[in-house]
Amino acid sequence: MTREILINAFAMNAPGHLSPGLWRHTADRSADYRHIRHWVDLAKTLERGLIDGLFIADVVGVYDVYGGSVDAAVRGGVQVPVNDPLQLVPAMAYATEHLGFGVTASVSFEHPFPFARRMSTLDHLTGGRVGWNIVTSYLDSGARNLGQARQAGHDDRYDVADEYLEVVYKLWEGSWADDAVLRDRASGIFADPAKVRPIRHDGPNFKVPGIHLCEPSPQRTPVLYQAGASSRGRRFAARHAECVFVGGPTILILKRIVSDLRAAAVEAARRPDDIKILNMQTVILGRTDSEAEDKAADYRSLVDHTGALALLSGWTGVDLSTYGLDEPLRHVKTEAGQSALESFTTADPDRQWTIRELAQWCGIGGRGPVLVGSARTVADQLQHWIAETDVDGFNLAWAVNPGTFEDIVDLLVPELQRRGAYKTAYRPGTLREKLFGDGPRLNARHTGAGFRTLP
Amino acid sequence: MTREILINAFAMNAPGHLSPGLWRHTADRSADYRHIRHWVDLAKTLERGLIDGLFIADVVGVYDVYGGSVDAAVRGGVQVPVNDPLQLVPAMAYATEHLGFGVTASVSFEHPFPFARRMSTLDHLTGGRVGWNIVTSYLDSGARNLGQARQAGHDDRYDVADEYLEVVYKLWEGSWADDAVLRDRASGIFADPAKVRPIRHDGPNFKVPGIHLCEPSPQRTPVLYQAGASSRGRRFAARHAECVFVGGPTILILKRIVSDLRAAAVEAARRPDDIKILNMQTVILGRTDSEAEDKAADYRSLVDHTGALALLSGWTGVDLSTYGLDEPLRHVKTEAGQSALESFTTADPDRQWTIRELAQWCGIGGRGPVLVGSARTVADQLQHWIAETDVDGFNLAWAVNPGTFEDIVDLLVPELQRRGAYKTAYRPGTLREKLFGDGPRLNARHTGAGFRTLP
Repeated sequence: MTREILINAFAMNAPGHLSPGLWRHTADRSADYRHIRHWVDLAKTLERGLIDGLFIADVVGVYDVYGGSVDAAVRGGVQVPVNDPLQLVPAMAYATEHLGFGVTASVSFEHPFPFARRMSTLDHLTGGRVGWNIVTSYLDSGARNLGQARQAGHDDRYDVADEYLEVVYKLWEGSWADDAVLRDRASGIFADPAKVRPIRHDGPNFKVPGIHLCEPSPQRTPVLYQAGASSRGRRFAARHAECVFVGGPTILILKRIVSDLRAAAVEAARRPDDIKILNMQTVILGRTDSEAEDKAADYRSLVDHTGALALLSGWTGVDLSTYGLDEPLRHVKTEAGQSALESFTTADPDRQWTIRELAQWCGIGGRGPVLVGSARTVADQLQHWIAETDVDGFNLAWAVNPGTFEDIVDLLVPELQRRGAYKTAYRPGTLREKLFGDGPRLNARHTGAGFRTLP
Repeated sequence: MTREILINAFAMNAPGHLSPGLWRHTADRSADYRHIRHWVDLAKTLERGLIDGLFIADVVGVYDVYGGSVDAAVRGGVQVPVNDPLQLVPAMAYATEHLGFGVTASVSFEHPFPFARRMSTLDHLTGGRVGWNIVTSYLDSGARNLGQARQAGHDDRYDVADEYLEVVYKLWEGSWADDAVLRDRASGIFADPAKVRPIRHDGPNFKVPGIHLCEPSPQRTPVLYQAGASSRGRRFAARHAECVFVGGPTILILKRIVSDLRAAAVEAARRPDDIKILNMQTVILGRTDSEAEDKAADYRSLVDHTGALALLSGWTGVDLSTYGLDEPLRHVKTEAGQSALESFTTADPDRQWTIRELAQWCGIGGRGPVLVGSARTVADQLQHWIAETDVDGFNLAWAVNPGTFEDIVDLLVPELQRRGAYKTAYRPGTLREKLFGDGPRLNARHTGAGFRTLP
């Protein structure tokens, strides 16, 4: 049986996301990110194409490693300015019926008590179509602006994140019984206080004695997304995530990532397919292969090398402004920096990369693979990736906005549908039901289900 | 010349706001607060009536003084559940063109760096129609759930709030020059880094070295609302607020509040009319006086006394569950508690109030005056309040939702328009331009304007 592919659109509330410089393209309207109609139009386009969800990335901070300042990022509009992702969702939800929404939020930047309320509110307002991309780490520049000297250590962060999750599970799953709310006009009882419990959380990082401020929302816990790649991150994902975003640059590497994640899920007493895995990719589509190739060449000519290096410097911690564009990667002086950068070149490890080549390669879609061709060519490739790697689907970034997404909806989706590899209608119900086919709540094997302490 | 009245609708993202028990009314749809369409419909109704703004109250906490637990509030749906107010705005903004939005947010519950981004995002998405109701104090139950033993002292809170405002002014007014963003496709320069400055804030409570994450929004600083009533609160309002919400229960008291506020504005080197003052009131309208009286009697019969006492106990800190409903107010044992409660009875200070009477009186519209009658009667009264007190307008709460607001739009507004006391079209521009007639930015006399350090 042909396997059905999941497709998310990957975006950011910013003029530039993963393809620095492409906002200069005459067809690009990324700069309209400030206007609500831009997002509502995008949501309608995606729903027309039965896209599973719109996943909105975020950083609370700036890319200021390159040259030791924010100048290169500001000049190129490289993930700065960057607006709050959360507020895009209510308007898009109002204008659509089925599209899911994944919102990125860091556990470092808001206390779990008000955060739990934000997500429950969003789950109510969207009718159960919201997911939370749990971020544990961020840019140092973000931490500094919150009065921290720098970020906590990597593993410590995950310990805090584990407790953060415990608090929100208690609020979402354990504070209000399913039948707590009566709304009984005759008796005047809105909710039965015997069925609403204070969570009495008292841990090393958080103390939350009270009840959740929100009545049960359709999904209670939003669909949980995560993108951790380290071994500690994978353990965290295996325990908490229902969807994992990965960035496998080649089939070989992605295959290993997927199999490791499914094994980790099993170790965490879950099923291998309790986790949906989506790979970050970019597709450049045309009506023919050569039209697509021309489009890709046009896009490549607009890549902002300095902008790409600002991103790479932020991701790796290496200030690439101190190297010439034609220096080989191996000239990068610190061992850690060299190895971080080399992880971006795993697509072609035997090649001797220069800094410029790396910038050019990462300048469209970050480190994710870029597939170019007619819908037929790209569909062949995506199905090949699925078959070889056991990945569940793709998180497709924009090169040009909204052109890339319009091409996906108008060209790629119909081709996949003809092959039986894409749904022809949305499933009913919440985002969780659409993705997993079961009920609206976390399944019984998920760690969060253990916090349902009320009858 | 007849003075034009400002009218805000006053609401909360909750099934019950200031009229506990009235959700039981057959015409009430407050319980639909969870659904986005409920809010979009309300916004459209308000815009049809040229209402200036929708002001959304909020508490991050519960009313748990009464009986020492949250039970009474939960049972009666008394401001609990309570969802996040912010997320209602983008959908309502998408569906309207002119209506303003006032969002309540406490300076105690989110760091100013991400908060500044939230408000700038909202100002962008609404096209400059957003106001921020600055809250400095909250319920102790909220503070406890954020890991604080209890709230900071009253005056300390205002000192922290002053620094919080300084940080957000620097981010909103001082980080990006007006002409920083070029969006120049030819040169590839998105923004000129020389015109984007880190704010380098280093104060006792907050350290924020970086740049604001958002490019300039239409109003930069959202319209600033405040509701402080104490003398320290009034000083804070005189310095920061552009609109002040007050709760004057009688003409005599309101007149003094208004004149004190205008004097305080002058002391802060502003003009008396730099602050728009809105009094919290509730209007119950009918096509005739007797229809309105019947409606009011119907509403009064549904007041939830226990719910009203839960609110009053939270507001005053006195556990009213320990008194009989028919005990006189003067039986309340602590002097502070007695005086706090008596402040609610200033509408009729010579009367010997019982606890029950107080609950009944506060059970519709909290401590605000309730005006009942035909549009003509109520318009007479409102104009009388304006003439006698110099207040600029009213913050009208719902008794029944959306019925109270529909009556305001369909009955009251046309009557005020016939008298030349209400606008017949929205002014163009941002919320600030609509309210003050000047430009979209803070005026030069406002303390926030002093943070425009860029050319």
